[in-house]
Amino acid sequence: MATLVLLRHGESEWNALNLFTGWVDVDLTEKGRAQAIRGGKLMAEAGVLPDVLYTSLMRRAITTANLALDAADRHWIPVHRNWRLNERHYGALQGLDKAATKEKYGEEQFMAWRRSYDTPPPPIEKGSEYSQDADPRYADIDGGPLTECLADVVARFVPYFEQTIVPDLRAGRTVLLAAHGNSLRALVKYLDGMSDADVVGLNIPTGIPLVYELDDELKPTVPGGNYLDPEAAAAGAAAVAAQGAK
Amino acid sequence: MATLVLLRHGESEWNALNLFTGWVDVDLTEKGRAQAIRGGKLMAEAGVLPDVLYTSLMRRAITTANLALDAADRHWIPVHRNWRLNERHYGALQGLDKAATKEKYGEEQFMAWRRSYDTPPPPIEKGSEYSQDADPRYADIDGGPLTECLADVVARFVPYFEQTIVPDLRAGRTVLLAAHGNSLRALVKYLDGMSDADVVGLNIPTGIPLVYELDDELKPTVPGGNYLDPEAAAAGAAAVAAQGAK
Repeated sequence: MATLVLLRHGESEWNALNLFTGWVDVDLTEKGRAQAIRGGKLMAEAGVLPDVLYTSLMRRAITTANLALDAADRHWIPVHRNWRLNERHYGALQGLDKAATKEKYGEEQFMAWRRSYDTPPPPIEKGSEYSQDADPRYADIDGGPLTECLADVVARFVPYFEQTIVPDLRAGRTVLLAAHGNSLRALVKYLDGMSDADVVGLNIPTGIPLVYELDDELKPTVPGGNYLDPEAAAAGAAAVAAQGAK
Repeated sequence: MATLVLLRHGESEWNALNLFTGWVDVDLTEKGRAQAIRGGKLMAEAGVLPDVLYTSLMRRAITTANLALDAADRHWIPVHRNWRLNERHYGALQGLDKAATKEKYGEEQFMAWRRSYDTPPPPIEKGSEYSQDADPRYADIDGGPLTECLADVVARFVPYFEQTIVPDLRAGRTVLLAAHGNSLRALVKYLDGMSDADVVGLNIPTGIPLVYELDDELKPTVPGGNYLDPEAAAAGAAAVAAQGAK
């Protein structure tokens, strides 16, 4: 039996502006920082105390983890960072307004890019303003992908989970993953055995710890896990689902 | 040739109150946070870009590193934490006012405890308010030491430096160590080959990166290294030396 805690970063500057973000390394808003601190306090109150942290290479997840762990008095635990926890690369959509994109391409195309399992957006142009091909943190993966669908995120994240994170769980450690809407959707799909169709309707709110108790075969004892603040989580998930609507 | 950057945490709440801190896990002050951010900007301006971070297990060093690396756009580098980078354990002095301690025990005893190489303060009582014997982060070292002199810090930190940090330097990585006044004094003594007597007069200011370029034998090319803001460093070192004087 092991405990896995999933934490989507707090509100980012581009969440607040309703822009597609992907691999662009934006910061948290003040609201996002407050969400992260509250997430840490929820963990402490629930007695969910991480023994080890995994983060993406992105500021919004890293800062969320730093603030949450500090609030939970677990700032001192070991840390591992890997690009495989990164948000889905949003390709040429990175930096575009969600509502304007929906207006321009229509509801069907917009939802296909945002939520279909296997339709990636058009690739980003190398060297363009919001591309990552010159970013030193991605030098050893040649700048990383130029676009991704959710299936691509499953393909790059789940093997890392199995090979690197599962051994910590099997050793009895409580593992905190601080990551992103779509990398966490990819993992939840895997943990809960969701179909490609069902994951389309899954939305993960920002800043609220989602706790999975896993059995000896690493199956969730409660499908979908338990949010530490279920009411706020439901409201947050509805807000994520509504993005681009305005 | 390798680059090693030493960063003493910014001003802590107990620095500001003039209390002996040691292993008590106090937070930074707002001034301390600003110092950490400035330290990161100094690194970025100087083009000193860490590839890997080592910290103690203490909040004031961890938060300093988090803030500095974020300001330098290097928040994503790998992190290693170890108690061997911790501040010197101040024994039964932890939580006491520095000026009152000097008043009570006299200048000679006060300076022996603060700056002599091999005189530890009296040991802290297990289970007392400022002891660490029930702290989960030190469970695997039985709560850690009950007091330390600087020689004890050299004995527990330098072997870790040689075995764990030096391989990163030999691989050509720029290494940032975010630590404490006395753990950094211990390391500087070792790097610069200072005598037990000379290290007594060494004071390291808070929040200003100290950069050592090391040759192939890991000897400093400039003894004492270079502070990225030498004027502020000199003023800061003088302020450290004056602690307890008021």
